[in-house]
Order: sequence, then C-alpha cells, then structure tokens
Amino acid sequence: MVGVSTPLSPTARTTVQRGRHRVVSDREVLHGFLAEALVGHVGVVVGDHPVVLPCAYAVDLAGPDEGGSLYLHGSVASVWLRHAIGSTVCVTVTELDGLVAARSAFNHSMNYRSAVVIGRARLVEDEAERARALDLVVDQMVPGRAATLRPSTRKELAATAVLAVPLHEASMKARAGGPGDEPEDVAAGTWGGHVPLRRVAGEAVPAPEAKGPVPADVAARVRGLAGG
Amino acid sequence: MVGVSTPLSPTARTTVQRGRHRVVSDREVLHGFLAEALVGHVGVVVGDHPVVLPCAYAVDLAGPDEGGSLYLHGSVASVWLRHAIGSTVCVTVTELDGLVAARSAFNHSMNYRSAVVIGRARLVEDEAERARALDLVVDQMVPGRAATLRPSTRKELAATAVLAVPLHEASMKARAGGPGDEPEDVAAGTWGGHVPLRRVAGEAVPAPEAKGPVPADVAARVRGLAGG
Repeated sequence: MVGVSTPLSPTARTTVQRGRHRVVSDREVLHGFLAEALVGHVGVVVGDHPVVLPCAYAVDLAGPDEGGSLYLHGSVASVWLRHAIGSTVCVTVTELDGLVAARSAFNHSMNYRSAVVIGRARLVEDEAERARALDLVVDQMVPGRAATLRPSTRKELAATAVLAVPLHEASMKARAGGPGDEPEDVAAGTWGGHVPLRRVAGEAVPAPEAKGPVPADVAARVRGLAGG
Repeated sequence: MVGVSTPLSPTARTTVQRGRHRVVSDREVLHGFLAEALVGHVGVVVGDHPVVLPCAYAVDLAGPDEGGSLYLHGSVASVWLRHAIGSTVCVTVTELDGLVAARSAFNHSMNYRSAVVIGRARLVEDEAERARALDLVVDQMVPGRAATLRPSTRKELAATAVLAVPLHEASMKARAGGPGDEPEDVAAGTWGGHVPLRRVAGEAVPAPEAKGPVPADVAARVRGLAGG
C-alpha cells in the first residue's frame, strides 16, 4: 500500500516533501480511506493565524468539484466557517493504526493513514446538492441512516451551512508494520516491535425514551466496528 | 465534565464561539486529556494557505512557556516545520468517543474530546530542553519507554527539530451521551441513541529479529488500551 510513485495531485502544495516512501499514489486507496474514516481536521486561516477544528465530513466522487467533492458542514454562525467560504482550506483525515516501539527514540513512530486535501471552500447553495451532502455526512457516521430519517425542516436547513472542497489537490501517506531500526541496534539484541491499534464500537446505547429495537443501520455499524 | 464557565484562556481567539455548553473550563481536565491522547493535528500557514498535518506531541506542564509547553518535533528538512518556527500555529488534539444516532439528521453528532492550542511556535535550542521534550514524545506513545532506550546520537539529534507552543491559549470542548432530539421527534416514537467508540490495542508484534519478551512498558501500554 506504500510506494514511491506519481503523487495523487500534480500541484506542489500537495506533493509530499518528506517521507516519500510513505506516499500512497493510488487515488482509489485515497477514496477508500476517506469513505471509511470518521473525523477530519479542517484548517482555516482566521486573521493572521491558522485554526484547526475537528469536523465530520463526507465525500461525493460524483460531486461537481474537480476530482469530486469533500463536504463539510457547520452552523451558519460559526466563525471558522465564515472565514472558510471562498478561502483555501486544508482538510486532513487521519486514522491511527499503531504505535511503533523502536529500539531507539529516533525511530519511534506511529502507524497511520492520513489524507491531506487542500482547496478553495465553496459555499454550497444549490438545495439539491446541500441536501445530498448532508445525507452523505449522516451516512458517513452510520451508513444507510439518512434514508431512515424524516426530512430536515426549513429551519434546520437554514441554520446549516455546507462547504465543498475539491478532491483534486490531495496527498496521502501511510505507515504500517514494525520499526525501521538501525542495524547496530538490532545487532545489540534490543527488543523492537509495534502495537496495533484499532477503533471498536461498544453496544448501541438507546436514549432513555427510545422505543423498539436498535435499527438495522446502527446495529450494522456496531458490528462493522466491533470486527475491527 | 461539560459546562458553561470561564474559558481556559482569556483571549478571544481561544474563546469558544459556538456550542458553549460543550466548553470544558477546567485546566486540569485539559491537562489530563492531553496526557492521554496520542495524535495532534498541527495547522501552519504556508504561503497563502493553511496546512494541517498529524503529529506526535507531548506536554510539559513545567516547561518554560506560559501555561506550560506543548512540544512537537519533526525533521529539520520538513517544510511545515520551517514555516512554523516563530509563527502562530494551532495544535488540535481530538479523541472520538462515539457516534450519536439522533432521530433527525440535524441532531446527528459525535461524542468527542478536543483541545485547541494556539500560540507562537518556538524552536527549542537548549539541548537539555530538547532532550527532555523528545523523551516526553516517546513516553506519550509508551509511558516509561524513553528511560529504557540508548541515548540519541549526535546525528539523530541534529536531524530533529523540536518546537514548543505555550499552553496558555487553549480551549477544550467535549460532548458525551445520547442525542439532544426535538420533543416532537421523541414523541413520534423514533429510535435514537449513541454508539460508544474506543481505541483498543492488539497484542504487541515483535520485529522479526526481536529477542526476549515484550518489555514491561510496551506490555503495560497494551494492557492499558485493551481495558479501554
């Protein structure tokens, strides 16, 4: 899954400068990763400094932006979102897969997959695209759930802003496996290895007033993450 | 753990604007969270746009910066790091704790803890502080491990840059529990609830040439994360 090859995007700002052996050059791997991960971190310049906030997101490969659309949403009143509209933002999605306990401090590392998308954030104004993006954000959390919910009210939609970032300028890095230790540290007989990490779900917790069984979509999400 | 109260920092840029009911106002909670989490996302302005990258980090509450020091490290050749030195950066640390499957799309949410630290990144030049910071970064991954490793070589230290960001300007938000649904959606009898998520460790995987048992520090890390 890791190799030196064509970067995902031809632009300088998403060409990986360091750790080129960890570059993932297959756009399908990027798409698969973004379909699976749960949280992004969006970076926006606010005044003279960057602000980085966690965000739910979703991807529509058939979206109208170059390379497909990455969607973010937020309150129309949020400061980061107002600064993001029309500006270049960076959305980074990372999943931590392990801790690499090398034989030296220098070679300690983490196993991870991380995608970086840089692009101009477009305020989505078309109502059909907005509705589709919001459904995708819900389905990113619990696949299939959006179709089971009542339509959003006009008031709810008016309170929500949706941003689209083109997937065109993207890079992805990944690290997997054990430490890359110095030969002399290996020869010295020191222990080295790695600790795999994964995210697991507990049983679904119904709200106090919830009636009936856990819906199939939520149960499937729990099963999917329980299997790791 | 969540309440409306004094923000952690008196400055405007780390005063939470939205979702004030999710603000964590206790600095000890911030410190405990930063001691426990594993990955940060650092935002740096590079030219005219933000770049957000995942990073290992560590905190020294007794560090020389106001409020204590948050340390990052990287290759001296890395582009983000060279842009960060002397600039204002944002380091955001997030742990995802659950998916909130509400009765409406609008009330879908995630349970999480997230700390945002904004400050000027200082290049750490004092050798004792550099060594201590790098030990702390290793111990953040596997507590107690730094003391078991050989000292870093001059070449390793020369290849590594350490940055310190003051912990003074920080905010923290957290969400826990089930959905905050509209009364009419509850009354309609729709199911709502949440799915707890946690990070777990698998068994330590020794490198092919590793000799002897898994060290106590690594074994303790696995046990700690296995327990959730």
